[in-house]
Amino acid sequence: MSLQILLDLLGTFVFAISGATAGAKRQLDLFGILVLSFVAANFGGITRDVLIGSVPPAAISDWRYLAASLLAGVITFFWSPLVEKLSNSVLVFDAAGLALFAVSGTHKALAFGLNPVMAALLGMLTGIGGGMVRDVLVNEIPTVLKADIYALAALAGAAVVVIGSALAISATVYTAVGALLCFALRLMAIHRGWHLPAAKPAGHALNRCNQEDESR
Amino acid sequence: MSLQILLDLLGTFVFAISGATAGAKRQLDLFGILVLSFVAANFGGITRDVLIGSVPPAAISDWRYLAASLLAGVITFFWSPLVEKLSNSVLVFDAAGLALFAVSGTHKALAFGLNPVMAALLGMLTGIGGGMVRDVLVNEIPTVLKADIYALAALAGAAVVVIGSALAISATVYTAVGALLCFALRLMAIHRGWHLPAAKPAGHALNRCNQEDESR
Amino acid sequence: MSLQILLDLLGTFVFAISGATAGAKRQLDLFGILVLSFVAANFGGITRDVLIGSVPPAAISDWRYLAASLLAGVITFFWSPLVEKLSNSVLVFDAAGLALFAVSGTHKALAFGLNPVMAALLGMLTGIGGGMVRDVLVNEIPTVLKADIYALAALAGAAVVVIGSALAISATVYTAVGALLCFALRLMAIHRGWHLPAAKPAGHALNRCNQEDESR
Repeated sequence: MSLQILLDLLGTFVFAISGATAGAKRQLDLFGILVLSFVAANFGGITRDVLIGSVPPAAISDWRYLAASLLAGVITFFWSPLVEKLSNSVLVFDAAGLALFAVSGTHKALAFGLNPVMAALLGMLTGIGGGMVRDVLVNEIPTVLKADIYALAALAGAAVVVIGSALAISATVYTAVGALLCFALRLMAIHRGWHLPAAKPAGHALNRCNQEDESR
Repeated sequence: MSLQILLDLLGTFVFAISGATAGAKRQLDLFGILVLSFVAANFGGITRDVLIGSVPPAAISDWRYLAASLLAGVITFFWSPLVEKLSNSVLVFDAAGLALFAVSGTHKALAFGLNPVMAALLGMLTGIGGGMVRDVLVNEIPTVLKADIYALAALAGAAVVVIGSALAISATVYTAVGALLCFALRLMAIHRGWHLPAAKPAGHALNRCNQEDESR
Repeated sequence: MSLQILLDLLGTFVFAISGATAGAKRQLDLFGILVLSFVAANFGGITRDVLIGSVPPAAISDWRYLAASLLAGVITFFWSPLVEKLSNSVLVFDAAGLALFAVSGTHKALAFGLNPVMAALLGMLTGIGGGMVRDVLVNEIPTVLKADIYALAALAGAAVVVIGSALAISATVYTAVGALLCFALRLMAIHRGWHLPAAKPAGHALNRCNQEDESR
């Protein structure tokens, strides 16, 4: 097993834990938790593969992604106190998974001939997509839409890969730099509470557009 | 029209009723109800077809799926008291639809060359996908994530098809056995209240991962 | 740049404003708002392209869609009072975007060989898809499911295109008629408060189907 695959599966495993944890907090049954594990870990990659025309997606055709996702779900279900104790480490693993998915997603999009900007965005999507659907399924506004620097860290890592591949430096170098940049940005955002500016409460902008305001 | 297609359309019809009913409960207008009918009945199959690369999906290219979905939506909209009276039968039809979709979805995934485990999971997805999106659209945590044995029944039926096709017994036999197993499991779960273990309330596991806790 | 592309990008821009506004109302950060802008403006077209097998979707392979979406998001973020003042015009632009997307989506689906009914529905989906996902991401029941004549206006415009292309009249004529019909229907619905009949509160139809009723 190559280092690339090993890291990829580690990322899958850690993201699956985040899905399982979200399910456990809402007291879903074992099966619901396993579904959330798989979705959180693989939805980003599946969406990327569908958009670039690489079907069936790797997460569907390679059983190891499924195995890593289910293993994480089962562990979280039966040993949630352990997972709780490890939550600090999990945050670090989560940042590592984000970094790796962003970088490898960008590589794959470039290999399928997408333009550089869209390749970087698909790399970002690979990193953040799973968490978005996880939150939608448990009826939350996706954390990535409102939280600390998360998607931006993924985008920064992806951008390094895109720029590096245009400059024809060694792939190993720019891949490592991109992943480390994303990882470092995310950890700094966690530890220092960095975040992007939020929109000021805008009053009733466009509320005539949104019938839900009136019908509620 | 073959028996296969007849049963498939019956499944579509019954799932569409479940979508229309969810919309009627929230007092959506007729069009919203028809959209929910179509989504609940066809999203699972459409997702499967996109993932295995069979585009346009059958639910898009064959008008009969649309017709069955809209018919169910219109009936539910105008005769909801009747649908209410039939709700027991509908539960039975729903279990039948689940069984059929799981089995036929697995067949299709195998025919497109997926490995056995993923073919079974895609069969399951065909059965449960529509209901998941139906619930997300009406702003609920998907029932399948938290309810009685539902996805598991679909997976059991799909597994029979996968195993049967590997053993080279008659396709008619293992298809019927798989569908009946799913159907029976689901009915037993309803009548006897069978369910999977749920996660114990886990306190604050991983809550440092989930910024939404703090920002609410 | 052809008139077609110009109008298409204008539609993208206006839908992106609707996404950004939805995000600003929930005080998302800048990045979350940009994600919502892109999703609201492009999800409908991306879904259509995936379903008809045209990958990578235009919104992914042509950078101008991204640029229009981000521009709209940035403007909304920094000048939301201005956007608020323009909200009447935005409603008009939104109707124009809906009309254009419905018509151009139908054209594309016909060009990929879909049957007429499904081509019209995919045209409608192109118009309404982005707004549906925008609302799901901010944890609302999609406006299009419950609001004034919106999806129906898109469907009417799409139907004109389908019928026109079958009758072999000039494409310019039926495209313009379809877009104008959709545009006019939507504006009339806004100004006169037209809406479709809603389902009567149906009591407890099918509630044995929906375990969430009991578990809440």
